Amino acid sequence: MTEKICLAEKLASFSETWTPKVIAELNGQHVKLAKLNGEFVWHAHEHEDELFLVVRGSLEIDFRVRTVTLGPGELLVVPRGVEHRPVAQSEVELLLFEPASTVNTGEMGGDRTVANPEWI
Amino acid sequence: MTEKICLAEKLASFSETWTPKVIAELNGQHVKLAKLNGEFVWHAHEHEDELFLVVRGSLEIDFRVRTVTLGPGELLVVPRGVEHRPVAQSEVELLLFEPASTVNTGEMGGDRTVANPEWI
Repeated sequence: MTEKICLAEKLASFSETWTPKVIAELNGQHVKLAKLNGEFVWHAHEHEDELFLVVRGSLEIDFRVRTVTLGPGELLVVPRGVEHRPVAQSEVELLLFEPASTVNTGEMGGDRTVANPEWI
Repeated sequence: MTEKICLAEKLASFSETWTPKVIAELNGQHVKLAKLNGEFVWHAHEHEDELFLVVRGSLEIDFRVRTVTLGPGELLVVPRGVEHRPVAQSEVELLLFEPASTVNTGEMGGDRTVANPEWI
């Protein structure tokens, strides 16, 4: 329950992209790690705000009217209901903080959905 | 609402210790930054799990039966109800995830309580 978690070790333990891994749970929220490379699908989370914190690399988050680019140590909260699309020009490693109920593709569904993310 | 937040910039914007600052809110949770130096009071949060992620320096979290030491990029979730005491042998910078209702001294109160943490 109270074991420490090293982000670098957890990130080194998997290589696949677009498959968020759960590393901790608290107050009904999940802390996840993910590796992204390329363009995701446009989607929104109707009931869930979502926090992106870049650990390594660079992440663009497209909104319908603008793009925000995050580097290491930068975070962004995407409020519920707001359409967004993560885009990584090259591989990026990031930490996500969001309700345990959050599905990566939000209300969009489709073949990139990871409904039950793995714990690592 | 969807402005990016740079942890280094936020950390550079204050110097006082033991005064957690709120940098983001999502799903009823706060993301806070804090600088600690020295020994805090023993306390527990009856209803709130609390995540500590060290950004710079080293943080010891004492439990009644052992101590966990966190370095940069390492995190720990302290479950609700578990007595703990943060100790920093020298200044440490850290990120906290916890419910917006969380008070730094938990059920303990006292003069080190910061009941309404400042937003930065």
